[in-house]
Amino acid sequence: MSELFMFEKPMGMRDTFPHLYRMKKEIRSLVEQEMTGWGYEFLETPTLEYNETVGEASAILEQQVFKLLDQQGRSLVLRPDMTAPIARVAASKLLKDRNPLRLAYSANVFRAQQREGGRPAEFEQMGVELIGDGTVSADAETIALLISSLLKAGLKDFTISIGHMEFVQELFLQIVGTEERAEQLRRYLYDKNYVGFRKHVESLPLSSIDKQRLLGLLSIRGNGESILDARSLIEGARGEKPLTELQELMGILNDYGYEEYINMDVSLVSHMSYYTGVVFEVYADRVGYSIGNGGRYNHLLHKFGAEVAATGFAFRLDYLIEALSPEAAKTETELILFSSERRSEAISLANELRTEGKSVISQDVTGISDVDRYTAQFHEVHWIVGRAGKSGGRE
Amino acid sequence: MSELFMFEKPMGMRDTFPHLYRMKKEIRSLVEQEMTGWGYEFLETPTLEYNETVGEASAILEQQVFKLLDQQGRSLVLRPDMTAPIARVAASKLLKDRNPLRLAYSANVFRAQQREGGRPAEFEQMGVELIGDGTVSADAETIALLISSLLKAGLKDFTISIGHMEFVQELFLQIVGTEERAEQLRRYLYDKNYVGFRKHVESLPLSSIDKQRLLGLLSIRGNGESILDARSLIEGARGEKPLTELQELMGILNDYGYEEYINMDVSLVSHMSYYTGVVFEVYADRVGYSIGNGGRYNHLLHKFGAEVAATGFAFRLDYLIEALSPEAAKTETELILFSSERRSEAISLANELRTEGKSVISQDVTGISDVDRYTAQFHEVHWIVGRAGKSGGRE
Repeated sequence: MSELFMFEKPMGMRDTFPHLYRMKKEIRSLVEQEMTGWGYEFLETPTLEYNETVGEASAILEQQVFKLLDQQGRSLVLRPDMTAPIARVAASKLLKDRNPLRLAYSANVFRAQQREGGRPAEFEQMGVELIGDGTVSADAETIALLISSLLKAGLKDFTISIGHMEFVQELFLQIVGTEERAEQLRRYLYDKNYVGFRKHVESLPLSSIDKQRLLGLLSIRGNGESILDARSLIEGARGEKPLTELQELMGILNDYGYEEYINMDVSLVSHMSYYTGVVFEVYADRVGYSIGNGGRYNHLLHKFGAEVAATGFAFRLDYLIEALSPEAAKTETELILFSSERRSEAISLANELRTEGKSVISQDVTGISDVDRYTAQFHEVHWIVGRAGKSGGRE
Repeated sequence: MSELFMFEKPMGMRDTFPHLYRMKKEIRSLVEQEMTGWGYEFLETPTLEYNETVGEASAILEQQVFKLLDQQGRSLVLRPDMTAPIARVAASKLLKDRNPLRLAYSANVFRAQQREGGRPAEFEQMGVELIGDGTVSADAETIALLISSLLKAGLKDFTISIGHMEFVQELFLQIVGTEERAEQLRRYLYDKNYVGFRKHVESLPLSSIDKQRLLGLLSIRGNGESILDARSLIEGARGEKPLTELQELMGILNDYGYEEYINMDVSLVSHMSYYTGVVFEVYADRVGYSIGNGGRYNHLLHKFGAEVAATGFAFRLDYLIEALSPEAAKTETELILFSSERRSEAISLANELRTEGKSVISQDVTGISDVDRYTAQFHEVHWIVGRAGKSGGRE
């Protein structure tokens, strides 16, 4: 292969060096422990799925899905998320044994990159799915578990923004009348393009009262009062229901003791054809973007033939690590340098030190091209070279 | 999507259910601990690589490599092994910091399936690479680490067959004279087609003495004596060298105390254009096929511009688990069933039990469609329903 090309990787593909690997492993393990403590069972699904099943069912936008053709010309995807594969597994098998079903994962997912721009095309997500339970208790449980997982990982300064798809949808339908016009409005909120939303609202042929109702959505923030304020924007029982749910949800999260991490935001909108109720996003103060999100997706399981409700969340391990900037776990590896005639002494010493739980490299001195440079990297070096019987000194 | 199709997965793709997931996690963790104890550092490489770099450098046969086209029409592979990606990373970066370099991995790799035949197209391999050290000490270290890893995982009855590519190559060249004819012979051994080997040898225009030298290869087994027997088949210094190395290797493995796991087999042949010296395969008594293999591959790093020797091994986690048939780690999850008016009591109890290290599901009773069926699956059920103040009984 050409010299210029030999180190190249496909667009967006990254290596994870030992230092970052250890950080990921440590954080993953803490979060796994927390999720398992809440009765969630981990599972794994294949890297490749059919586009027609899991690809199309996923919440990830079409153009972001990493598509490939197999030898038979069938369209495959590298799993873009774990929610759709888990829905497949739950509907085909696991729900028959247990319902509600609590599942968890840590898995690499894939997003196609249109151009090289520093964004990874493969990254690890951790998350849970609570399938078969439509209660607000279930919504609250996933949010509480997200918070406790982040706390367990060591994250301190973060906020969970919570909204409700039905509230936004009902408000928009009450005011603009058609699904098509409602969708236009939702798109601005989904893109967090509030300037565009304002401009668009101003341009609509609506009464100034209705315009104020739409614009009012953007100024409602804060917890207890926001739900009351939101009530003033909307009419009827269909508008009441999501707000009553949000109020109950807030109450439960208070019971968990997590109110300080919550920001009720009734203007929050997630992937439109996917989420059906409570939705949420995590913001960590140290990074400028959402590190995870989730919500209720009561229609997805229907696509796999199971008439059950579901909710869940996922967060990105790389973003969490960025937000944590953890101290790198150091492995203090000791070095034993031996000459071949004293190899058996080296083996015994290595064995002894490893039994004490130490990490030990046992290295034949003739296998190193630059001994000084190599040994300089170790804090503790045991020399077992030269005449037998001379005990291995420490340097 | 059609009902018949909705649960389908691409050929050879599997789900890993929680039970197997826990077994894999437990075994992986024990092996990781052992490899880390020997000073090996874990890393991760991308799932996708260019065929032109890592695909073509890999030891996996062309037709087994899972190839795909990206949006730009470039040929990609799902990594077929971890050795070639690690060679890329080592040559481009890590060897500059440390040489010799000890790296380890647990990673899913991919093999294309020509037809559905029950073989997984994606499976997890664990392994190590020791790069930059050409000594027999390094060969012995990787084999000893393989043995200690398997022992740590709980495997008892297994054998490591050890051979040397240079010995077979030199013997064949001495007798049949050309690389082309030698390759024909090696192919039979690679396929473990000993009947075919015999027939082929009988058909060759050779003296009966030379035929006996070739056939003699198949009857040499056992440890100490086999190297002496092998010496009687071959001539000259080029034939001596690999046997001397094997003898030294055997001596070191005795020092490690691992002689009982070793079976010297000078007829062992691995992937021909890849391995260059000592090669080995692991056989576990409970399964009929090799669960892992390894050896010296001194040419691979050259392809990535680094003039260094290397050795390593990989084994399949699924095969190891098959050989172990471990007791499934059980998670005894407790259930708290609550009615919404007593939710905060349930939250407190769950919190308390989780702090004790227990796995606890806290479930709103109105979220369950079949309460009897659901609760029957739990050994311990705490009911927190009905009038507040009544303490949660255990059932």
